[in-house]
Amino acid sequence: MIKFETIKQHSHSSARLGRLVTPRGEIQTPTFMPVGTQATVKALSPEELEQCGAEIILGNTYHLYLRPGHDIVESLGGLHRFMNWNKPILTDSGGFQVFSLNSLAKVTEEGVTFKSHIDGSTHFFSPERATEVQEALGADIAMTLDEPTPYPSDPSKTETSLKLSTHWAARCKAAHRMESQALFGIVQGGMYKNLRKQSTEEIAALDFPGYAIGGLSVGEEIELMYDIAAYTAELLPKDKPRYLMGVGKPEDLTQCSAMGIDMFDCVMPSRNARNGSLFTSHGKVNIRNLQYKADNSPLDPDCNCYTCKNYSRAYLRHLFIADEIFAMRLNTLHNVAFYQNWMKRVRQAIDEDLPFADLGLD
Amino acid sequence: MIKFETIKQHSHSSARLGRLVTPRGEIQTPTFMPVGTQATVKALSPEELEQCGAEIILGNTYHLYLRPGHDIVESLGGLHRFMNWNKPILTDSGGFQVFSLNSLAKVTEEGVTFKSHIDGSTHFFSPERATEVQEALGADIAMTLDEPTPYPSDPSKTETSLKLSTHWAARCKAAHRMESQALFGIVQGGMYKNLRKQSTEEIAALDFPGYAIGGLSVGEEIELMYDIAAYTAELLPKDKPRYLMGVGKPEDLTQCSAMGIDMFDCVMPSRNARNGSLFTSHGKVNIRNLQYKADNSPLDPDCNCYTCKNYSRAYLRHLFIADEIFAMRLNTLHNVAFYQNWMKRVRQAIDEDLPFADLGLD
Repeated sequence: MIKFETIKQHSHSSARLGRLVTPRGEIQTPTFMPVGTQATVKALSPEELEQCGAEIILGNTYHLYLRPGHDIVESLGGLHRFMNWNKPILTDSGGFQVFSLNSLAKVTEEGVTFKSHIDGSTHFFSPERATEVQEALGADIAMTLDEPTPYPSDPSKTETSLKLSTHWAARCKAAHRMESQALFGIVQGGMYKNLRKQSTEEIAALDFPGYAIGGLSVGEEIELMYDIAAYTAELLPKDKPRYLMGVGKPEDLTQCSAMGIDMFDCVMPSRNARNGSLFTSHGKVNIRNLQYKADNSPLDPDCNCYTCKNYSRAYLRHLFIADEIFAMRLNTLHNVAFYQNWMKRVRQAIDEDLPFADLGLD
Repeated sequence: MIKFETIKQHSHSSARLGRLVTPRGEIQTPTFMPVGTQATVKALSPEELEQCGAEIILGNTYHLYLRPGHDIVESLGGLHRFMNWNKPILTDSGGFQVFSLNSLAKVTEEGVTFKSHIDGSTHFFSPERATEVQEALGADIAMTLDEPTPYPSDPSKTETSLKLSTHWAARCKAAHRMESQALFGIVQGGMYKNLRKQSTEEIAALDFPGYAIGGLSVGEEIELMYDIAAYTAELLPKDKPRYLMGVGKPEDLTQCSAMGIDMFDCVMPSRNARNGSLFTSHGKVNIRNLQYKADNSPLDPDCNCYTCKNYSRAYLRHLFIADEIFAMRLNTLHNVAFYQNWMKRVRQAIDEDLPFADLGLD
């Protein structure tokens, strides 16, 4: 099981420096988890992920269940062995992809029926099934199955949905057997504070070792996202890790760390990298731009990653324009390292009790 | 400049163990050069190439001239710095791609006019231009511009073509200025031994520090290729490295090493890898096959590469089926390592004076 402790409380905000101890290693929080959808963080090796500073990655249960199949992964020794990543893995429950990739997913109190986006075959996920699949994968942290609330959604539908998520969370907990795996609950409630409060109370009453805030970053205004995230984070138990799912941009990570969020995940660093959109300490760089054609400087002179230490912007542009696989590698490596370095600076600011604004991070 | 010495003569064949010394490092021969068409050996980092055992790679002048442009590469410190590969590089002259990618290329005594496969723009390559471009790239070994003889081709056309190639070789040599770069001549003459002899004599009379056999592996029967290669190799100066261009399969490397060939290049290991076709000590593996779905064994139990040491066939299959970039990396790494290990065993056999057949390599 996991252990979470707060090492230091930021005096300028609700941010806290923490340590999440799992059987597969310790995670410094606030932390960002690169997304490894199909048993690989796209384009990177496990060794490179470690070099970037990643201490935990996320796997997508929906994808792994469909391909290669959780039973196959289990028979091969579990997800860690399968993908050669020996540090912690958090798996989502599959719920989010079931709904976002299946506009015709059919929900009942029992569970959700959906079609595979790969071959159209029909599948059924119940809370018990989602739990079983994540146990087979062998994640260090698993998530309860929930029904993500669409945006916008009226209060009545949002409340019906959050109640279903609470029932499902209780069933996940009852079904959960794997002692070395921590099961986190997820708070829903849409953009309504009273419903966020209701969901938080119901989920916290089930007593999970960690809590996620779901249903944000789904198309709402950023100020609304911040408002709901801050409100919900405040209500969550102080002694448990708080995970804001699917967020976000570097500045979101700073803002939400200040609210007392401890864990984040997002496809943004890796997906943007594959589109040539690179984060640097001097702003975003679209590496396909002509201006970099003969630019012999590193992508980000303030970055110590393999890409920035060894290659020029001109080379990165050339590889990208020439559609080379190595472009995907070097770009992803940099963006993932940028996010890890960003979180490191957030943690240092908490440790030294400096205002986040002083970091030039905003 | 380069130095070539024979360390040992195989008593079972014409194979020789050699050492090719260049300003950027020493190459054990017979050697295989992975192909880095666009300033990258597709999917691999320079460090991985080194780990595979590569001591020299090939760059394609045609591609680099068109994109990013040899002038850009030169302004950025040359091809080695550009791509972060500090060991030797051989560049071809661009001639082969000019003809194979441009069915409408127009040849005169002066040179060849062709259209870019990227944007249709018109370009002109003369022997002087091809030499200048390779000097700008900063290759350790450059090749003379030649007209590859198509297959089949009648004796009269083949002779006209080989004479043009001789004229061009002489012009390349006259134009060549870069002292740290070795310029190799190329023998043509199609599938006619008398014309191969004529070409060899003409090219050898120009006194190059190394010689390539061009115009083979262009669709002819394998026995004919072996026959012409062996015949031509025998005629070439013994004290200079012999390079068989664009060859080939692992068994071709053994067969042609036995003829006294010292250098090879081919896209096969990397291209096959990207198609899921993997070389192993127990034969070829098509990794997409269903039989590997739950196969927890390494791709090749006799291989010491990163892929084989850390991943199962089931994982490689999953990545390939899921169209993951990491599949391209792991597959290419293995195939390139397989070729390097194969050549290592060929060199050991020469060193220990064992018949190649004893290696189980054929």
